[in-house]
Amino acid sequence: MNSASGTKYVIGVDYGTLSGRALLVRVSDGAEIASAVHEYSHQVMEDVLPSTGEKLPPDWALQMPSDYVDVLKKTVPEVLKISGVNPADVIGISTDFTACTVLPVTEDGTPLNELPEFRNNPHAYIKLWKHHSAQPHADRINELAHSRKEKWISRYGGKISSEWEFAKALQLLEESPDVYNTMRYWIEAADWIIWQLCGTYVRNICTAGYKGIYQDGQYPSKDFLATLNPKFANFVTEKLDHTLGELGAKAGTLSREAAQWTGLPEGIAVAVGNVDAHVTSAAANAVNPGQMVAIMGTSTCHVMVSDVLAEVPGMCGVVPGGIVSGKLGYEAGQSGVGDLFGWFANNYSCGDYEDLAKAAGVDIHTYLSNLASKSPVGSHGLVALDWHSGNRSTLVDHRLSGLIVGLTLATKPEEIYRAIVESTAFGARKIIETFNQSGVPVKEFIAAGGLIKNRFVMQIYADVLNMPITVIKSAQGPALGSAIHAAVAAGAYKDVVAASAAMGGVEDDKFVPNPSNAAIYNELYLHYNNLYERFGHDGMMHDLRRIRDTALMQAGK
Amino acid sequence: MNSASGTKYVIGVDYGTLSGRALLVRVSDGAEIASAVHEYSHQVMEDVLPSTGEKLPPDWALQMPSDYVDVLKKTVPEVLKISGVNPADVIGISTDFTACTVLPVTEDGTPLNELPEFRNNPHAYIKLWKHHSAQPHADRINELAHSRKEKWISRYGGKISSEWEFAKALQLLEESPDVYNTMRYWIEAADWIIWQLCGTYVRNICTAGYKGIYQDGQYPSKDFLATLNPKFANFVTEKLDHTLGELGAKAGTLSREAAQWTGLPEGIAVAVGNVDAHVTSAAANAVNPGQMVAIMGTSTCHVMVSDVLAEVPGMCGVVPGGIVSGKLGYEAGQSGVGDLFGWFANNYSCGDYEDLAKAAGVDIHTYLSNLASKSPVGSHGLVALDWHSGNRSTLVDHRLSGLIVGLTLATKPEEIYRAIVESTAFGARKIIETFNQSGVPVKEFIAAGGLIKNRFVMQIYADVLNMPITVIKSAQGPALGSAIHAAVAAGAYKDVVAASAAMGGVEDDKFVPNPSNAAIYNELYLHYNNLYERFGHDGMMHDLRRIRDTALMQAGK
Repeated sequence: MNSASGTKYVIGVDYGTLSGRALLVRVSDGAEIASAVHEYSHQVMEDVLPSTGEKLPPDWALQMPSDYVDVLKKTVPEVLKISGVNPADVIGISTDFTACTVLPVTEDGTPLNELPEFRNNPHAYIKLWKHHSAQPHADRINELAHSRKEKWISRYGGKISSEWEFAKALQLLEESPDVYNTMRYWIEAADWIIWQLCGTYVRNICTAGYKGIYQDGQYPSKDFLATLNPKFANFVTEKLDHTLGELGAKAGTLSREAAQWTGLPEGIAVAVGNVDAHVTSAAANAVNPGQMVAIMGTSTCHVMVSDVLAEVPGMCGVVPGGIVSGKLGYEAGQSGVGDLFGWFANNYSCGDYEDLAKAAGVDIHTYLSNLASKSPVGSHGLVALDWHSGNRSTLVDHRLSGLIVGLTLATKPEEIYRAIVESTAFGARKIIETFNQSGVPVKEFIAAGGLIKNRFVMQIYADVLNMPITVIKSAQGPALGSAIHAAVAAGAYKDVVAASAAMGGVEDDKFVPNPSNAAIYNELYLHYNNLYERFGHDGMMHDLRRIRDTALMQAGK
Repeated sequence: MNSASGTKYVIGVDYGTLSGRALLVRVSDGAEIASAVHEYSHQVMEDVLPSTGEKLPPDWALQMPSDYVDVLKKTVPEVLKISGVNPADVIGISTDFTACTVLPVTEDGTPLNELPEFRNNPHAYIKLWKHHSAQPHADRINELAHSRKEKWISRYGGKISSEWEFAKALQLLEESPDVYNTMRYWIEAADWIIWQLCGTYVRNICTAGYKGIYQDGQYPSKDFLATLNPKFANFVTEKLDHTLGELGAKAGTLSREAAQWTGLPEGIAVAVGNVDAHVTSAAANAVNPGQMVAIMGTSTCHVMVSDVLAEVPGMCGVVPGGIVSGKLGYEAGQSGVGDLFGWFANNYSCGDYEDLAKAAGVDIHTYLSNLASKSPVGSHGLVALDWHSGNRSTLVDHRLSGLIVGLTLATKPEEIYRAIVESTAFGARKIIETFNQSGVPVKEFIAAGGLIKNRFVMQIYADVLNMPITVIKSAQGPALGSAIHAAVAAGAYKDVVAASAAMGGVEDDKFVPNPSNAAIYNELYLHYNNLYERFGHDGMMHDLRRIRDTALMQAGK
């Protein structure tokens, strides 16, 4: 190995739902030198458990821990190779993960699915964030929390998600007591991968807060847990609680084994684990109060730093140090955004449209957007509710559904497409207004994620929000955000704010609201909000879902 | 010409929106011997006036009187020729028309557009039923009628339509006083064509009542008309009022000129004019109280005879003798039915669906219906409002629009298609329930029109209405209905009821409700009705339309 040069580098590894990506970044300015992707061999296990071929129940979503380690083994050596960077110049590594993605492990961190006695038990595997079958358990937690007036419930907008640590753990206890009793730790994948890198288990403050109900220095009480299920009473003390680590802090140093996997020097800094959305704030250098970062893709996650503790209705959570150490971190979300556009464009745009798009050499989204752009705002006469995947914020209700009003026989596909795009922008505005009204004002809107490439969508957001929208510069926001945390953990910057200023940033060009469009959207938003308040609370959508589910059940489907 | 045989025949001529059809029918049993169609050369003039190329304003729809005469000249000789029937055996002729389709004529019945001085004036032409630009005039009539508590307004469900005689006449007066002042009669096309056949102007009681506000032996008062516009004060006495004729009565005998056009014997009976929907009751032999006939096509018209005078909210009208002489005739309607199915199937069913339908050798409607049929009722989780063309009954509001609720990312085109079909069935149920609640019970539901061929649609209607549905036997309901009226006018039967029993009828097979489907539709209907009452009255759809129209106007579109 050559000796180190003057230029220092860090590596950020972003763990997504289907693959992991390593990014090699220059410490001085955040320049992205090389990246590499590895797809998980087991992808998401939703239908059957591979070891047995056993069919999984509905709403299950599992992953395989070894796939995560493979990402390290494949991608880190590859970025070193592509870049030609001397490994000795790499001073730190950090990761970010989907969350809440959680698994049962032994005292030494071995995933239970790797023990022969449990390899055929689905509950021994990683439960991915989108494993949604713990909804009944979440419902019980929420009901009990409200009946006991637990102070922490309001920190989560009034509702704990079925995706999170407690709901999934209660499901585990009640459906597979063997696995539950055998496990020593119920651990976030975000923390487990760091343990694999440095040999030390540190619970990152971000997932502990947002997903683990850690508030004001404590978890839900033994009494609360015992009321849910007497056997759950000691869940926190026996399975969950552990040393916490601030974001950007060093969890440990790279172990000999991990150095062998990656080709990096043993002993370099390994940062505390992190979450994909939250770490993007650093990549956008949007880590000051009032800067809302929206990671816009199939769904949208909103994260914002603040100095003010407030109870924002329907937020996903507020966590001290949850985004940047020393500040409060707020999170909110929209369950369906880009996937709504895809659903409509792929299923409801007729043969002619597909042919014309092909002839014009553009994809169907671009074609629909171009057509829709030719008509003035409001001229479709439509308003939609963007709840095709339910509503995360501000209603926290996944039994809601989509609606569109204003249809006529003259309504064209591009008009419905536009109305759906607008509905997601109205959904974002509802979240922003809720923050504003709760005393946590949103002063800037910074967009990241796959949708930032779509200028049509971004301009609609600017007009609907009536705010300029800046766009993250990096195309690999989460991986860059992780790299920034690695640089801080390695001591290259005094904190994440300083590192973000040097290494992160946004494009100079902004999407600026068009005042006359904004005025029309103000009118349309009143109707959106009216529909939102009515259908969000009147129970009609729940009842339609009940009728649907009953019909399907009786038909044996 | 040969001498007459023992077998007698009549001819019914059905004037539709785009063409006219003659049907030669045997008097003894209604057997349909021959039919012929002629398309209007000028079709519907909606964009430009052919004589000048002048662009017509939005919502205009004109027709050409000579096209109607051409139908007689082409189709009647053709049915005689095809059938080989001896013209001497034809004892009468009758017609039915779209309504309210109305034109300005001179003292001798010459259409004003045929005078050289008016041929370049759009107002001199026939205003087709779907000429909708007199809405502001209709609004003024309705407002004034309610403020003066005019008794007649409740006979029309509380609203006069922009399609009808008074609104269109007021528009004519105010936009083209020359034409207004020159015309001697403002005449229904239904009556004008009879005038051409027999040389006598008789106002049929059906359009006089439903479209001409003739109630309790009088029209709206001079005082009422003068309040609308002082120059409109004498509209009834100077332009409208004329001898009335009962349905099935003889208006006169075939003139020498019309005999030459048609090849029929001079002097045979010509029946009083009639309307396409109303005349269909006779063809279905459904002319007794409680038998609701639904003519289901692009839109649906509901007609029913009754002994009881009641104020049914949102009905189109109740007219003594309006369907059958001596009985009250009720009319209601749905603005959009088959055209909603077409709108969705043609614009929102993707390339794959078109290809698969083609591969299966069926049209897109059949393909979507077959797919939708495979899933149980209610399993789509959707409810729609069928107001894409507005709502005729019970809300009488063409500024309403369509809505769909319950959409998810799993929602498929065939599910939306089915929800749209169901929404029109719910709309029909709402009309039936309104009649039932108003003391005019609907005891039978008899379907006619183009949609009766669609078994999928008919079964959904049976399940939603929870009533057996019988289907008219004739595929040419209106033309057969006209022929029945011709037979009565010729004296072959004592009245329309007797002639209908002999010449009209329904198929033996019925569509019978499936009880478990009906139970689920009862649940879904509650949601439909809830949406109906909310969006029918809360003004949101009006405001979306205002925003739309303003946006289009400002863009100069």
